Amino acid sequence: MTDPDGFDAATALGAPESARYPVVLHPGWTVVGGKPNGGYLLAVLGRAAVAAVVDAGGAHPHPLAATSTYLSAPDVGPAEVETEVLRLGRSASQVRVRLCQDGLPRVEAVLVVGRLAEGVEPWWGSLPPVEVPPFAACERLGVQDHPGSPFRVPLTAVVEERLDPAVLGFLDGRPGGGPELRGWLRLADGREPDPLVLLLAVDAYPPATFELGTTGWVPTLQLTAYVRALPAPGPLRVRQRARLVQGDLVDEQCEVWDSAGRLVASATQLAGLRVGDTPPPPA
Amino acid sequence: MTDPDGFDAATALGAPESARYPVVLHPGWTVVGGKPNGGYLLAVLGRAAVAAVVDAGGAHPHPLAATSTYLSAPDVGPAEVETEVLRLGRSASQVRVRLCQDGLPRVEAVLVVGRLAEGVEPWWGSLPPVEVPPFAACERLGVQDHPGSPFRVPLTAVVEERLDPAVLGFLDGRPGGGPELRGWLRLADGREPDPLVLLLAVDAYPPATFELGTTGWVPTLQLTAYVRALPAPGPLRVRQRARLVQGDLVDEQCEVWDSAGRLVASATQLAGLRVGDTPPPPA
Repeated sequence: MTDPDGFDAATALGAPESARYPVVLHPGWTVVGGKPNGGYLLAVLGRAAVAAVVDAGGAHPHPLAATSTYLSAPDVGPAEVETEVLRLGRSASQVRVRLCQDGLPRVEAVLVVGRLAEGVEPWWGSLPPVEVPPFAACERLGVQDHPGSPFRVPLTAVVEERLDPAVLGFLDGRPGGGPELRGWLRLADGREPDPLVLLLAVDAYPPATFELGTTGWVPTLQLTAYVRALPAPGPLRVRQRARLVQGDLVDEQCEVWDSAGRLVASATQLAGLRVGDTPPPPA
Repeated sequence: MTDPDGFDAATALGAPESARYPVVLHPGWTVVGGKPNGGYLLAVLGRAAVAAVVDAGGAHPHPLAATSTYLSAPDVGPAEVETEVLRLGRSASQVRVRLCQDGLPRVEAVLVVGRLAEGVEPWWGSLPPVEVPPFAACERLGVQDHPGSPFRVPLTAVVEERLDPAVLGFLDGRPGGGPELRGWLRLADGREPDPLVLLLAVDAYPPATFELGTTGWVPTLQLTAYVRALPAPGPLRVRQRARLVQGDLVDEQCEVWDSAGRLVASATQLAGLRVGDTPPPPA
């Protein structure tokens, strides 16, 4: 039986009408303010893109690249995904998708979908997985009480995010000054990762800027994700890093490795960040 | 007088009709096979996005983020850019743009436009510029004869690309095995850089994979660029690096610094790459 709060139920699409797929955004997959998490929304859009290609007679089951622009954060509840297959290709197809709610566009995305083969080896380059303490030695977000924590996030009940304790100073109001969060991630109900879960994983961690001493939320303007391989079963390793904070904007990079140590996804995002009078951390 | 082959003439838009802007893709701004360069196309789309926002009553003159998906390479000659302002905001606006030719969508892009302030300093993080030999000590592409060169590129006449000689082994059929191209870039007619030129610069270099020993072309599937600051006058430094070649796909990252040494743009792309029987370079 499908977990009614699980990933597949929360990203399920209804029957399409004129290439528009209904979806119900689930309250369990939200962050602060009851707003759905950006990675969750990207997974919904990825599912819609693949469905649109299949419904158009294509056979490309996996997102290879996804780029989404966030216009206005949707709320939980009914929404729909408008789809337009831009090109049905041999090795890849391209799809434009738009999440609408209350008649307003909320997220605009374009996906390249294709087929990831089993057991592909890198021909060149293989970013080694980030070094983190063992799964059980990392601290699960949302479980322990941290009075200084800047947030309480429903998402942490359905997504098990275990972070290296060395990067969790911000939870106690003592940010470490580093620009990097790292740790593990898996779905709490034991569902194994696949390419759609990878779209969630690249934007499920807290903002890496929390460790820089900024506490405000960091709304994503645009996010781009690449899915490079089918992930092996087991928990994923995640590294989320900020690169440059300038002019109320920050760019962050994220890498995801599977349990076999292979780089399976990477992403970059540009997000808003109001530093105001916050002093920068020591270099 | 405007240089008729220069950047501004080659990216100029005609008067819009129903938010569709005519453009004539210029033969000088092409790569192999007479196809317009991807960075040049992104600059055209950036100009259209800003024009669409201004025509809709907004006041956001600069692209901040641009993500483009390449469907089918256009040819030189007349084309049009369909625009849709998705949201007119206070600090930023979002625009969907589509380059069409012969009634077919060729490039689909979404841009975030806003206003970059003069003299903004990084609050945190400042990627130091890539180390390269002085401008005059780098070799200008397209000028010297290299019998083993895999390409001859009209773009190199209008864009002065000067690369570190240490990464140019591929021009003589002796690729160095490194995954990185680096050097300088400026417009050949002396026009100074601005945010639109930065959209060109992030995808104007040859593929970094040439130094890995692959000689086939590397068609971009999806490219994402961030413009982080107004560039100072003078030549730009560029670094283009490949990260992972796997399953006939490669992801590349590009960074651009201005003459003052500030990171002014960065980009990532996923591209096709057929390695076939090419042996990987030694690690």
